[in-house]
Amino acid sequence: MASVKFLNSFKWFRKDLTNIKDLELWEIEEIMALAKVFKESIVNKLGKLPCQRGKTIVNLFLEPSTRTRNAFEMSAYRLGADVLSVNSSASSITKGETLKDTAKNLEAITADMIIIRHSAAGAAKYLAERLRIPVINAGDGAHAHPTQALLDSFTLREKFGDDLRGKKVTILGDILFSRVARSNIYCLKKQGVDVVLSGPSTLVPREFEKMGVKVCHDLKDAVKDADAVMLLRIQHERQSANYFPSISEYANVFGLNRLREGFLKKDAIIMHPGPINRGVEVDTYLADSPRSVILSQVTNGVAVRMAAIHLCLCAASKIK
Amino acid sequence: MASVKFLNSFKWFRKDLTNIKDLELWEIEEIMALAKVFKESIVNKLGKLPCQRGKTIVNLFLEPSTRTRNAFEMSAYRLGADVLSVNSSASSITKGETLKDTAKNLEAITADMIIIRHSAAGAAKYLAERLRIPVINAGDGAHAHPTQALLDSFTLREKFGDDLRGKKVTILGDILFSRVARSNIYCLKKQGVDVVLSGPSTLVPREFEKMGVKVCHDLKDAVKDADAVMLLRIQHERQSANYFPSISEYANVFGLNRLREGFLKKDAIIMHPGPINRGVEVDTYLADSPRSVILSQVTNGVAVRMAAIHLCLCAASKIK
Amino acid sequence: MASVKFLNSFKWFRKDLTNIKDLELWEIEEIMALAKVFKESIVNKLGKLPCQRGKTIVNLFLEPSTRTRNAFEMSAYRLGADVLSVNSSASSITKGETLKDTAKNLEAITADMIIIRHSAAGAAKYLAERLRIPVINAGDGAHAHPTQALLDSFTLREKFGDDLRGKKVTILGDILFSRVARSNIYCLKKQGVDVVLSGPSTLVPREFEKMGVKVCHDLKDAVKDADAVMLLRIQHERQSANYFPSISEYANVFGLNRLREGFLKKDAIIMHPGPINRGVEVDTYLADSPRSVILSQVTNGVAVRMAAIHLCLCAASKIK
Repeated sequence: MASVKFLNSFKWFRKDLTNIKDLELWEIEEIMALAKVFKESIVNKLGKLPCQRGKTIVNLFLEPSTRTRNAFEMSAYRLGADVLSVNSSASSITKGETLKDTAKNLEAITADMIIIRHSAAGAAKYLAERLRIPVINAGDGAHAHPTQALLDSFTLREKFGDDLRGKKVTILGDILFSRVARSNIYCLKKQGVDVVLSGPSTLVPREFEKMGVKVCHDLKDAVKDADAVMLLRIQHERQSANYFPSISEYANVFGLNRLREGFLKKDAIIMHPGPINRGVEVDTYLADSPRSVILSQVTNGVAVRMAAIHLCLCAASKIK
Repeated sequence: MASVKFLNSFKWFRKDLTNIKDLELWEIEEIMALAKVFKESIVNKLGKLPCQRGKTIVNLFLEPSTRTRNAFEMSAYRLGADVLSVNSSASSITKGETLKDTAKNLEAITADMIIIRHSAAGAAKYLAERLRIPVINAGDGAHAHPTQALLDSFTLREKFGDDLRGKKVTILGDILFSRVARSNIYCLKKQGVDVVLSGPSTLVPREFEKMGVKVCHDLKDAVKDADAVMLLRIQHERQSANYFPSISEYANVFGLNRLREGFLKKDAIIMHPGPINRGVEVDTYLADSPRSVILSQVTNGVAVRMAAIHLCLCAASKIK
Repeated sequence: MASVKFLNSFKWFRKDLTNIKDLELWEIEEIMALAKVFKESIVNKLGKLPCQRGKTIVNLFLEPSTRTRNAFEMSAYRLGADVLSVNSSASSITKGETLKDTAKNLEAITADMIIIRHSAAGAAKYLAERLRIPVINAGDGAHAHPTQALLDSFTLREKFGDDLRGKKVTILGDILFSRVARSNIYCLKKQGVDVVLSGPSTLVPREFEKMGVKVCHDLKDAVKDADAVMLLRIQHERQSANYFPSISEYANVFGLNRLREGFLKKDAIIMHPGPINRGVEVDTYLADSPRSVILSQVTNGVAVRMAAIHLCLCAASKIK
């Protein structure tokens, strides 16, 4: 198991993790290295580590979320910290308080860190610049979801090794408003991965082509050389509204299923940030097949979030 | 106080507790024996025990509940565990995720146990068979509520000794859709208790007669030899609907009150799973009288749930 | 840091803290002295103290609240205790259970303390008299909010020294239904502070004049000699209804802003229980100016609540 010395040997200096775009490659490497240690502690059933015992981490989730909130809560527990949950319905924000005032108050009640999910792009960074305590972005509008991208890269490294240069990852689905896609594009490109975006033309933006990202609307072409296909959740809201394509149209053309598995390379893996719509983005056969690393992603999310929390808290303790 | 050796000396081998029907008598005895130790730790104000320190237990309550959820949360704390609460409104299930996927995800974020309440009979067993981690049933539809039955038997044993053979327990009220009644019937019969069911004929099923359970619609006859009368909660929903009997009709004919106390044996006790409707199932005089063991049941619920959690977690750690 | 001996050396004998009116001055002094120790532990970043490790404190909030609930939860964590949260929507009270039965049940599941917020004046005292475990009032209707008053006095003492006799505090705003104002009036008078109430005549009661409290509807006169101006939150609800004055009328006449800062003494401080309506009670310039101790109040709230919890739990452990 990692010694205390090791856990404090990182060069990481940021008190906040608000997006991937700002990170240097060596910072991504540090998170990956620490997350690997924490993953081992999970696999070896070492239980809670005392790294951040006595700290209280606030989960400030101002948009509905279960999975990410639970994952952060579990990550905090595994570091020995307490968790204070604040959600939008309970929040003083409904009494007209500004986001900054809410956060300043959480800092003033001696919270050690704020994990924030918010519907507005930039909310996490806005707070990070105004608080002394660390802020981790758990999703801000369509902007960024850095820990999701980091856990996806961690999962890719588990399969393909730490050097991802030259690997090909296809992101498939509703990319237009996806913070998961946006953060993954930056994270993968920094690691030298070839990224392809695919899906209906109405849902795939072209703004990333200038970064060397390819766009391909033909499913077969898009996935045929991919080492990994990253599926995105198709929003259920589309079913009832006048969206194009509808959920069933999407499933007909872009849903991965047993038949279309033939498009994939032999060892290609399938990823999904969850929760999955079985029969829409992916059918049950593929979701539960050996190709699927969906549940590994979930566990890796705990390891990566433990690393992010630990590094940011350590950096903050050095600053102050 | 129980030594660590004692706490690990049980033969119990199940990772899950989903219903009473499956349990052997010796398994019930083991839970009772361990619960007795935990009850002593409560009475002697020993505070938290470190038995399951570092574990995280998920309270997955997909039906509204305060009392049972609180009791499980407290039981987990008293064993040194952390608790992660997931309820239906926050759950990804509302985003179309299946119950199995929700549970698999909780397992993947490294939860050590799931306590589930669900409106569908069989939900707990369904998950237990699909997860590596232990599952405890905190109530599944009209099917089972095993920890309630175990705490009721624990309470009876505190009053009448560990050998309940030949004792007579009358279950009175809305038995038809009651998981509490169902689990108690199995639990009591396994221990050799004579069980009588009573209440309006519309609310008392006859399916248990083949197990040797008696049905008696006359209140006086039903309770006159009983060592304990177990009251069930009459659902408030009946008040507004066209149910027969209505709440006031029920109270008139079957409500226990100061007058009808004369029907009872001198030392007969009154039990209720709570929350009680004062003036419906029981009047305030009797609910607060020395006959009432209602609050003892609540405390015993913590001891019994500590035992169930501890035994299932220990069994799971041996399997894997 | 305070020795264990010091932490147990207090004469405090109450198991409950339900209002300020009942407290002797020496009891207020004891809370202040202990809170000072806990504040030092916060400032010196000592993390959690083990004073109440193994205890479980119930946050029974039957009225919406984020800030006070969070502050109590944090205070409990900093004493090493676990927290079990019960709110009104989840509560069995919605199933027709009485408040007393709900609380008795929480006691029976072995809770060590109940922190209650309730819409009815007297609810905390009602429970305190019926439970063996301690009860702390976190706000009961328009009646009392003792920890708010204590943290306000703690903040005044930080600025002006422990002897507040002869200091002048002006409470400004919607005093009529304010439990914060009521508790502060008692707390300040017991410490020999001159109290002035100000605001629109429709919102300022005259009942406290018999205690020697002055009422002054002219803002300039009311604040000109004040060492501290305590602002109260103007309820947003007034905006839509036919209240007089409306929010904008209030802000025009009584809102503290950069211009009206000229009314204040050079070293006068501005206090507010939060959440603040920027531009209503106070403008952003003043709220964020050096005069404002609003965020200090929040941090002091944790220290004071730690003291109240610790003293009441210690008293309860001696009684039983």
